[in-house]
Amino acid sequence: MEAFRQAVVNTLERRLFYIPSFKIYRGVAGLYDYGPPGCAVKANVLAFWRQHFVLEENMLEVDCPCVTPEVVLKASGHVDKFTDLMVKDEKTGTCYRADHLLKDFCKEKLEKDPKITEEKAAEFKHVIAVLDEFTAEELGAKIKDYGITAPDTKNPLSAPYPFNLMFQTSIGPSGVSPGYMRPETAQGIFVNFKDLYYYNGNKLPFAAAQIGQAFRNEISPRQGLLRVREFTLAEIEHFVDPEDKSHPKFSEVANLEFLMFPRQDQVSGQSARTIRLGEAVSGGIVNNETLGYFIGRVYLFLTYLGIDKERLRFRQHLANEMAHYAADCWDAEIECSYGWIECVGIADRSAYDLRAHTDKSGVPLVAAEKFAEPREVEKLVITPVKKELGLAFKGNQKMVVEALEAMGEKEAMEMKATLESKGEVEFQVCTLGKDVTIKKNMVTISKEKKKEHQRVFTPSVIEPSFGIGRIIYCLYEHSFYTRPSKGGDEQLNVFRFPPLVAPIKCTVFPLVQNQQYEEVAKRIAKSLTAAGISYKIDITGTSIGKRYARTDELGVPLAITVDSTSSVTLRERDSKQQIRVSIEEVASVVKEVTDGLNTWNDVLWNYPTHSSAATED
Amino acid sequence: MEAFRQAVVNTLERRLFYIPSFKIYRGVAGLYDYGPPGCAVKANVLAFWRQHFVLEENMLEVDCPCVTPEVVLKASGHVDKFTDLMVKDEKTGTCYRADHLLKDFCKEKLEKDPKITEEKAAEFKHVIAVLDEFTAEELGAKIKDYGITAPDTKNPLSAPYPFNLMFQTSIGPSGVSPGYMRPETAQGIFVNFKDLYYYNGNKLPFAAAQIGQAFRNEISPRQGLLRVREFTLAEIEHFVDPEDKSHPKFSEVANLEFLMFPRQDQVSGQSARTIRLGEAVSGGIVNNETLGYFIGRVYLFLTYLGIDKERLRFRQHLANEMAHYAADCWDAEIECSYGWIECVGIADRSAYDLRAHTDKSGVPLVAAEKFAEPREVEKLVITPVKKELGLAFKGNQKMVVEALEAMGEKEAMEMKATLESKGEVEFQVCTLGKDVTIKKNMVTISKEKKKEHQRVFTPSVIEPSFGIGRIIYCLYEHSFYTRPSKGGDEQLNVFRFPPLVAPIKCTVFPLVQNQQYEEVAKRIAKSLTAAGISYKIDITGTSIGKRYARTDELGVPLAITVDSTSSVTLRERDSKQQIRVSIEEVASVVKEVTDGLNTWNDVLWNYPTHSSAATED
Repeated sequence: MEAFRQAVVNTLERRLFYIPSFKIYRGVAGLYDYGPPGCAVKANVLAFWRQHFVLEENMLEVDCPCVTPEVVLKASGHVDKFTDLMVKDEKTGTCYRADHLLKDFCKEKLEKDPKITEEKAAEFKHVIAVLDEFTAEELGAKIKDYGITAPDTKNPLSAPYPFNLMFQTSIGPSGVSPGYMRPETAQGIFVNFKDLYYYNGNKLPFAAAQIGQAFRNEISPRQGLLRVREFTLAEIEHFVDPEDKSHPKFSEVANLEFLMFPRQDQVSGQSARTIRLGEAVSGGIVNNETLGYFIGRVYLFLTYLGIDKERLRFRQHLANEMAHYAADCWDAEIECSYGWIECVGIADRSAYDLRAHTDKSGVPLVAAEKFAEPREVEKLVITPVKKELGLAFKGNQKMVVEALEAMGEKEAMEMKATLESKGEVEFQVCTLGKDVTIKKNMVTISKEKKKEHQRVFTPSVIEPSFGIGRIIYCLYEHSFYTRPSKGGDEQLNVFRFPPLVAPIKCTVFPLVQNQQYEEVAKRIAKSLTAAGISYKIDITGTSIGKRYARTDELGVPLAITVDSTSSVTLRERDSKQQIRVSIEEVASVVKEVTDGLNTWNDVLWNYPTHSSAATED
Repeated sequence: MEAFRQAVVNTLERRLFYIPSFKIYRGVAGLYDYGPPGCAVKANVLAFWRQHFVLEENMLEVDCPCVTPEVVLKASGHVDKFTDLMVKDEKTGTCYRADHLLKDFCKEKLEKDPKITEEKAAEFKHVIAVLDEFTAEELGAKIKDYGITAPDTKNPLSAPYPFNLMFQTSIGPSGVSPGYMRPETAQGIFVNFKDLYYYNGNKLPFAAAQIGQAFRNEISPRQGLLRVREFTLAEIEHFVDPEDKSHPKFSEVANLEFLMFPRQDQVSGQSARTIRLGEAVSGGIVNNETLGYFIGRVYLFLTYLGIDKERLRFRQHLANEMAHYAADCWDAEIECSYGWIECVGIADRSAYDLRAHTDKSGVPLVAAEKFAEPREVEKLVITPVKKELGLAFKGNQKMVVEALEAMGEKEAMEMKATLESKGEVEFQVCTLGKDVTIKKNMVTISKEKKKEHQRVFTPSVIEPSFGIGRIIYCLYEHSFYTRPSKGGDEQLNVFRFPPLVAPIKCTVFPLVQNQQYEEVAKRIAKSLTAAGISYKIDITGTSIGKRYARTDELGVPLAITVDSTSSVTLRERDSKQQIRVSIEEVASVVKEVTDGLNTWNDVLWNYPTHSSAATED
């Protein structure tokens, strides 16, 4: 596993799929550049994401800034809660994630300490399992208990304390407007709900989408491209009536079958199993059709990209993993050398986010369903008598009025009864931090029949959120294989990318260095450019075999070898099969295959196969 | 002009081309969201940029993080010099850009003060002209002189002082690693030069490209989308041998003619004039072919997008505008309601950036030209005798050694002569801040003949840098027009986007609300999706005329009206011409036109024109 990973990572770094950022300055942990092939793979993945989600589903795409004022992230809860627990080396000040240290300690004990008792082993396993739920105090106690010290220096550690993972900055020159680099793109969509709903003709359901950078100031980045400090997210917020989460296109995905890992199976210790999506929804395993529809669409997206079906599963969050407001949540997890990695989260977040911004901003982020006929409803009406309240509470009047108006139906009707029987009532005003006495003449409470023409409600949000870098890294591992060179003396690396994601669709090699062949290569290059096909010309004098090996290592699906002035050899990467195609036709043949209109096998039967000049030495 | 701008901006905001960010929280100056049509326009512009530059020129695209450690921006000069001069309201602390206040003051005097003397008027005009070159002291003196106070409060102002425009943050949990949000994407390319050069087979010239967010914490953002705090840049760094700046494809652009505004013409008070690009280069107006080639390619890029040729000019920087290291610099300026706006900068930055990072990092960012035959050269060899220097200077030895080794040829040969004649010499060591005495036994200096197999040099960089948001805003203004409605009672807004940039390529309207037509509309929608064409279905019962108006306002080039179950009406936006096309064919006809394979006029002759049912009421 380690050796496999090392082989993949070596190839990726050597061919500049990615590069540690700012390498000449010894780099910064958790920051990576995409070099030319990595950048092309990323652009292809994002273009396909736009096609598969935004275009096919008619989503409203938006593009919001990364710099975000504090108030927005205060409302969303990130300022207060987007933290990891950290400990400091008490002498050097080096910081560590408290849960990582504890986990590493337990793992090492389990793996390397032969004298460990069965009881102790069970304890360590339990700690690893429940680690995510430990409070700062519990983590601190365990670290103290086990005598864990700083890994590098063995110095004592501080008690764990929360560290906010957002990069903080200041907006404008005055220094009084704190801001953060957004930790997710979703908030930009939520704050625009009103405009987007209007843009959609005031109709539900609709989805908005955003692709963009997100930032998390990780305490100790690990696992290469999987846990980084800046990354590209692609997020969808699908707004839906909470009373109707059906989806008109669910039938199109209902017959898909793939690995699912429902909550129940995890708790009872079973493994993930193949389930038909339609059954998962009708059987109540997946909360609703819309959530199910997106699970199916995500499955299709990932497998089209080349993710191995056998190493892809949809795992439901356990009850304690989920935010309290979430109705249901599934992660698309992909297995790679680091284990099962969460790459897409698909959550029904109910009305939480829109409510939070409604409360903080005072702007109602709601939808309305117009009734065909007006409906009669009984409505609670609370009318504070401001004059009396003013006399009684002076400067506190406003707080008392607001508290009265905020009463729910039950509380209000109880107050009405008490006022009628006793003439006054003790009433708790939280904003004043005390009880006040409300008299009968200070408020009238009644129920009135009203005709309503519409139902106003806060939509639910179903959010598929894609970690693009993680998907791409897993794709690299799933696409990588080695095969012996023709001489058998070395292993050659190949990425079996589908044409959809391949960084370059085609290479062009003049068989030998001469002007005639180079002219032909240039003509072919021009026709490839005109057809919108990315290519690379390799005019080095290296052997054809070496040039094929180089291009296989970049995952280029097709190679054109110029070995005459009328026709060329076209070679496919994985089968190494070769056909002869005329110079005029070759660009369109390449386009057919790379656009997915024809498979290589279709093409193979239409052209003579080739076995002479341009064989792989 | 103001009225025109207001009409454009109203349309743009109403149709969500853009939205002030975080509007429900009263927004943040200088931050804007792109709504659905704006986002689609931006994606189209960027896709075309990739096609026109990266793909056609085989550039190496990279994708680097926004978060940048201080050392990188220290080397580039941004930490020390990326500042604007700011003044503060001494009572409220509100900040203003000093040059803006002075400019506004002079402009207002010139425009609104009828009693102004001719002498004074000339002075104000001069101040506006040379404003950009004022030092903090000069600006402060003028502000004091003219008695300028804070615009909102009339309070006195502080003296001007520099404010760094980068958003600052901190990387990692320790708080000891300052970082910034990058103010441009270029540095990410420069620090990767070595890897990219290797990737390109150690050959020059080659170009790297990057599209990404950049950040500038403007003191007082103005002019809507033109001066913002976060924006998308697309930058190219073309690395070239400083001794050979010819370009193999220059002949392809040499015959282009367009408005150029050479330095000489600006100084002598002339206007921009039409020049053939080939003459501009051969006549020495443009410094070299490569710079000229990019000017031509930028011209093609902007005009393909729909920028009006008559309101596009290439203005050369004046000598005092240019950085001291730059060989030549041209801005593509587009005229809009705010005047001539710099949208693309095309600069020959010579070896400055690579040298700066070489010096700071110690990693040589150089290229080599291998000679066909080794060449004999005379080389200066300075050999400090470390033992003697150590005895003489102890802890300062290192500084003395470095200073000796850094001597140029002339200085070294003079030292050699003095040492031979007098046995010792006074030598200034800047890093010590004093002179030291060098004796004959401390250093040997000689000239030796050496065979060299290659020439090692720092490449020059030619940098075209595109402000994507500015280009898009100018495109909006250039594409906007109004025409009377059929009744003549109102003005309808139209964006005449070419299909290449249109946010949606096609709309689909069932003529009346019935199930049959809606079924047909759905079938057409499916075939459009399959053909990769973005569309919008409008099934509202509104009149066809209103629906056309709505879609014209989004700049949608084609509209399909479903008015039978066998064929449909296809209508072009600007001519309002209509043809009849069968349901089976319509997607491919739309694709032909929007992909640019056929023009509307080509199509017009192949299908019957239409004038009955679906006329614009």
